[in-house]
Amino acid sequence: MDVHEAHRVRYGRSALRVTILAHVFGTLAIILLLVWLLHFREGLDLDSDDPNRIFNVHPFLMFFGFIFLAGEAMMAYKTVGAERKVQKYIHMFVHLVAIVLGIVGLHAAFKFHEKRGISNLYSLHSWIGIGTFSLFCLQWLLGMSVFLFPGAPMETRARAAAWHVSGGRALMFMAICTALTGLMEKVGFLGQLRHSEARVINFLGLSILLFGISVDLSVSLARYI
Amino acid sequence: MDVHEAHRVRYGRSALRVTILAHVFGTLAIILLLVWLLHFREGLDLDSDDPNRIFNVHPFLMFFGFIFLAGEAMMAYKTVGAERKVQKYIHMFVHLVAIVLGIVGLHAAFKFHEKRGISNLYSLHSWIGIGTFSLFCLQWLLGMSVFLFPGAPMETRARAAAWHVSGGRALMFMAICTALTGLMEKVGFLGQLRHSEARVINFLGLSILLFGISVDLSVSLARYI
Repeated sequence: MDVHEAHRVRYGRSALRVTILAHVFGTLAIILLLVWLLHFREGLDLDSDDPNRIFNVHPFLMFFGFIFLAGEAMMAYKTVGAERKVQKYIHMFVHLVAIVLGIVGLHAAFKFHEKRGISNLYSLHSWIGIGTFSLFCLQWLLGMSVFLFPGAPMETRARAAAWHVSGGRALMFMAICTALTGLMEKVGFLGQLRHSEARVINFLGLSILLFGISVDLSVSLARYI
Repeated sequence: MDVHEAHRVRYGRSALRVTILAHVFGTLAIILLLVWLLHFREGLDLDSDDPNRIFNVHPFLMFFGFIFLAGEAMMAYKTVGAERKVQKYIHMFVHLVAIVLGIVGLHAAFKFHEKRGISNLYSLHSWIGIGTFSLFCLQWLLGMSVFLFPGAPMETRARAAAWHVSGGRALMFMAICTALTGLMEKVGFLGQLRHSEARVINFLGLSILLFGISVDLSVSLARYI
């Protein structure tokens, strides 16, 4: 085993350990999100007469449905003990589920705006969010056509891989920024909060950020050499 | 030249091109920030009697002084045409300047809070910001002691390099999240904005995000293979 190979093995192990951290922070974020929405807020219901209950579906599905599952899909090459081809299909399929749940989550925000007569897509949060989601769908389609269909020659795949991985990481980064700006926007709308609710929201934001960083490190450490 | 070497050269070139993008978005962000603070807001002055003028030093120094310079320091290995040792010292020194200007920028926020009788460090923005800044200083000290002083053996350096690069990228990511949550927080405090000011703030946020992504890609693309 030469030095390069030894480094690859070592950073591969570090990357695997970081996926455990990602699961800790991701699970913590889901728990805090549910505590926030169910205990401090009105709960979740897409078909409710209460616009707030409709809205609350948005943060839940955008984090648990979209960001968390996209992170799982990104880490599948480390966490799923199966041959490469199977990992690839899981990577693609979990991303597809994330996109579908993300669309329902976006629908919840638009439905809330409509019920309340608020205009759409004016805030920084919404701009970054729509940009991220559109580029994410594009990345999924490009990934399908280059890496899953047998047509693309090896040279094209090798060239596209660096951009696919770096671009995917950038999209996770953008999704986390969207989540945090969304939390800040909601806090701004809610005005004065109970001290305990403010704390829950801050720890939720931190957990989401640390989830994103862990997913990112699990990809970048393994690819370092 | 073997395949690995050819890829390294190609992605090295892509990484260099991405540094140009980083300068475009970084410069755009600085211009928009100044338009916002000087035209729409009260201007900048750390010694003013107007607390708002004191506060405005904060976003300016945290972006131009801290994030933009830290990005320049991260890209120095690509943009500075000098031998490795010189690049290393520039990388270290520009980060030091970023830290010093960042401290002045933080001081501006605390001074504003004091003048207005607002409590410190309660928001998600402040939590992420203080965390990022503290870890950034720690990273700088660790980097100094491992890579600049001649004591550390090559094996330690090689092992630390992967974490230094991945950790540095994570810190840039956290700094961008802090900037965007800060913008959202300020928008929440300001309440109803003129349409044109809201647009400037949104484009400013987008430019900051795209600066961060470009800096990140310039590091990760070059290291892909």
